[in-house]
Formats: sequence, structure tokens, C-alpha cells
Amino acid sequence: MSACVIDVDDPADPRLDDFRDLNSVDRRPDLPSGKGLVIAEGVLVVQRMIASRFVPRALLGTDRRLAELGADLDGLAAPFYRVNADVMAEAVGFHLNRGVLASASRAAELTVSQVLDGARTVAVLEGVNDHENLGSVFRNAAGLGVDAVVFGSGCADPLYRRAVRVSMGHALLVPFAKAREWPQDLKVLRDNGFRLLAMTPDPAAQTLAEAMAQLAEQRVAILVGAEGPGLKEHTMRSSDVRVRIPMSRGTDSLNVATAAALAFYERDRLGG
Amino acid sequence: MSACVIDVDDPADPRLDDFRDLNSVDRRPDLPSGKGLVIAEGVLVVQRMIASRFVPRALLGTDRRLAELGADLDGLAAPFYRVNADVMAEAVGFHLNRGVLASASRAAELTVSQVLDGARTVAVLEGVNDHENLGSVFRNAAGLGVDAVVFGSGCADPLYRRAVRVSMGHALLVPFAKAREWPQDLKVLRDNGFRLLAMTPDPAAQTLAEAMAQLAEQRVAILVGAEGPGLKEHTMRSSDVRVRIPMSRGTDSLNVATAAALAFYERDRLGG
Repeated sequence: MSACVIDVDDPADPRLDDFRDLNSVDRRPDLPSGKGLVIAEGVLVVQRMIASRFVPRALLGTDRRLAELGADLDGLAAPFYRVNADVMAEAVGFHLNRGVLASASRAAELTVSQVLDGARTVAVLEGVNDHENLGSVFRNAAGLGVDAVVFGSGCADPLYRRAVRVSMGHALLVPFAKAREWPQDLKVLRDNGFRLLAMTPDPAAQTLAEAMAQLAEQRVAILVGAEGPGLKEHTMRSSDVRVRIPMSRGTDSLNVATAAALAFYERDRLGG
Repeated sequence: MSACVIDVDDPADPRLDDFRDLNSVDRRPDLPSGKGLVIAEGVLVVQRMIASRFVPRALLGTDRRLAELGADLDGLAAPFYRVNADVMAEAVGFHLNRGVLASASRAAELTVSQVLDGARTVAVLEGVNDHENLGSVFRNAAGLGVDAVVFGSGCADPLYRRAVRVSMGHALLVPFAKAREWPQDLKVLRDNGFRLLAMTPDPAAQTLAEAMAQLAEQRVAILVGAEGPGLKEHTMRSSDVRVRIPMSRGTDSLNVATAAALAFYERDRLGG
């Protein structure tokens, strides 16, 4: 069964409300991603949403993108509102050259125990409150063998539109959970046999390569803090190993998603 | 000798023209970074400009940032225009919470041979036309032991304001040069004893770790192409080794600056 395609000519049509004025909705800091909906932009990210636990409830796009999606829409219980580029731009509030959007309600949140199930490597983030960095962490996690992401305190919403876009849709596919008590919930990881690696610029810490080689046979959680402050001291003290990226003199730090990518890479290379 | 500090109350004062309407100047695609000036934003980046070959010709900032810069301004042959935050916002055209700017004329361009002199590891970019990615490449190069950057065809301007900002000022410090003939100028690298590593998603390529281990004793050039298309076939054919990052199934690629960071890291670890 192919998708139900509905042609819409009027940008004010209320059936397009999931996608209306996306940018201004996004600017409301009280409601990241607007109405609480998850928005996927572009063919690739829409495909990943369809494959994820976030079930599309509506799609909006041009005929060209409908054709590109093709069989991906088979069996989908959501209408595809087909519009021309002008109607789309007027409804959305700006010209969106990706040409297709999908909306989904938020799926039930997963627990930390749920996302640890079957995982060998997880990323644990603290204070990562930039949506682009969050999205990049998910993209890097997906590409470099990380099974799940756990959020400590102070992190932004990974389902915010920009985070989903920068993640290339992997924020919808890589399971994540928010810790209820932080950093106490790190105990849940330890109880599940995870060794906790805290990333730090401290020159006294072990190098990534040393640490990952020693932990090749074990479950590993890679703890990364916000750029600038890094992990909080309490979180550091709750970890098992402090790990650093060897850096050139005179430089301070790497972007948080880049630092995470290097740790993911070493884990994947040496024991993922 | 400390800097010459000049108080300015009038946002229309022509002495602030280097910094006027920065955003609209930036929007002119024909003139990246506006008048051809290089602009540094924030205390850290201004400090790096002062340490670089880009000699500041004027600074604009609040009293607080003047105090933070302190002795860094000693001996600087450029006025510091001291303003309050409102005058600064009006002159610049938006509220700049970094609170200090410096302008510099463009330094003479370096040649490829010049930047290779003394270098063991260089990055070579092709088609990287996104200023944020370019800035990130410079930041990663500086942190992970890359000595210089060479630009092939299709790259954006690394001295554009946004690139400089994202690079944390390292676009001003890491030497770079533009190839005159591309990809023929890769011969200059080879004539200088560099082995040319081309990054590719091709599963048949060597892994980063294999390739870098074999080249630990040699000069190495890491070739990275634009996200999506990657390196052009002609460039690929001009390289010595094709190298891939081991990736999880079902994922496509990493961000270009992240992929470069992983290559820089492996080079630094195994022979930098």
C-alpha cells in the first residue's frame, strides 16, 4: 500500500499546521521544537524517521520529494500533503530547499536501563546544551559504533529540529535516555558492568589509546562534558578512569562533538 | 608601552568603520569579510590575532575586555577604541557578547612551498566551501599536530569572519596556502617527500590506523574532500594511498571536519 497523497493548494490549510511557521515556533525557548512535535527535514532524515520509533503522523512536501521517497512510504499510516514549493514556503515560513518534512509525536521516553540493554559502548553527556553539538554527537555515535546516549544534567533537547537535522536523523535512531538523578544514576551504568571513562584535558590523565586498549573486553561509558567547563568535579569523581586526547601545546580544547568522536573512534578501533 | 586607548561615544564615528554593520557586510557574497579585512572576535581570538602574521590595525571593545586583554596589548601599534556596549552594538549592527573586535589587513599570501617548509603533516582540502567546516578544520589541525593547510579548488575563504571565529583564531595561526594549479600542485607536495593520503568512504581502502602506521616515518599530506561528493576522481588518482575511517553499517559519512580530525588524531598518535 502506498502513502495517502493529498494535494493542498492553500498554505493556510489547517492540515498543514504541524509545519506552520517552523522558525518562529522554534524561537520559543519554552517549547523546543514547537508543539512538542519532532520534525524531520529532507529525504534522508524522513527515511530515518520512518525507520525509527518516532512514527510520522504527517508529511509535507513537493512532488519531486514524494517520488524520491517512493516505496519508503509504503504502509505508512500518515498523509503526504503534496504542495508546490511556494505553498510550502508560505506555510513553513521560509524556503526549505530540502523540500520535504515529516512530523511525529514524541515516543515514550526510554529509561537508562532500557538503553543499556545489549549495549557495549554508550556516550554520557553532561551540560551539552548546544543543539548543533548534540546533533553532531548523535551523528558521530551512529557512525562510530556507539550503541546509546545517556543524558546527565544540563543537556539540550536532542529532538529539537536543529539537533535532528545536524544528526542526519540519527537522534531518532540511536536510543537515548535521561538520567533521573545526576550523577547518582551513573551507578546504574556501573551496576550493569560499564567502566566509566571521563574525558578531561588534564595532562595527568591516561591517553585515549591507553585507556581504550585496557578496556577492550569491557562495557564502556564515555563521559563528555560541555565545551569550556568540561565535566563537573562530582561527575569526575564518580568515574573510573580519566582520559585525555593528546593535544598540541598552545591549544585549549576541541569542540565537544569532535572530542567525543575521537573517543568513539578509539573505542571502536580497540574494542567496540 | 601599553595600547593607545581612545574613548568613543558616537557610534557613527568614522574611526569605527572597520567594524561597521558587520553582518550586512558579511552578507555580500562577492566580498567575504567585507572590506577584505580580517576580523577577530572575542578576547581569545584577538590574542591569537596579535600573535599571528595578521597585524591588528584597530580594536573596538568595552572597558572590561580592555582589562582582560591587559598586557597582550603592550607594544601594539593600533588604537583601542573604548566604547560602551550600546555604542558597540549600534556600530557593529548587533549585540556582540564577546565584547571586543580587532581588524587586520590581509597578510601577504603564502605559497605552497613556504607552508611545507619544516612541516611533517599537512591537510589538503578540496571543495570545502562551508565556513564553519573550514574553521573547524583549522581548530582541529592546531589541536592535533597538523603543521599547515593547503587549499585545492572550490574551498571557501578561511579568513572570513565566521571561519576565523569557529577556528578559535587558529585560521590566523596555522599557515595555509592556495594551490595555483589543481590538482597538478600536488606534485609540489610529492616533490617535497610528502605521501598523499586520500580520505574516502570506499570499503576497499586501507583503514586510517593501517595507513598511518606504515607512514609513521614519512611526511604526510591528508587529502579531504567536501562532504557528500568527497574528493574528485582526478584528485583521488593523484594520491598515493586511499584511506577510510571504519564506519558502522547503515551510516553514510561523518562531517568533513570530524573526518579530518580523526585522520589528524591517528597521524599524531602514530607518527606526528
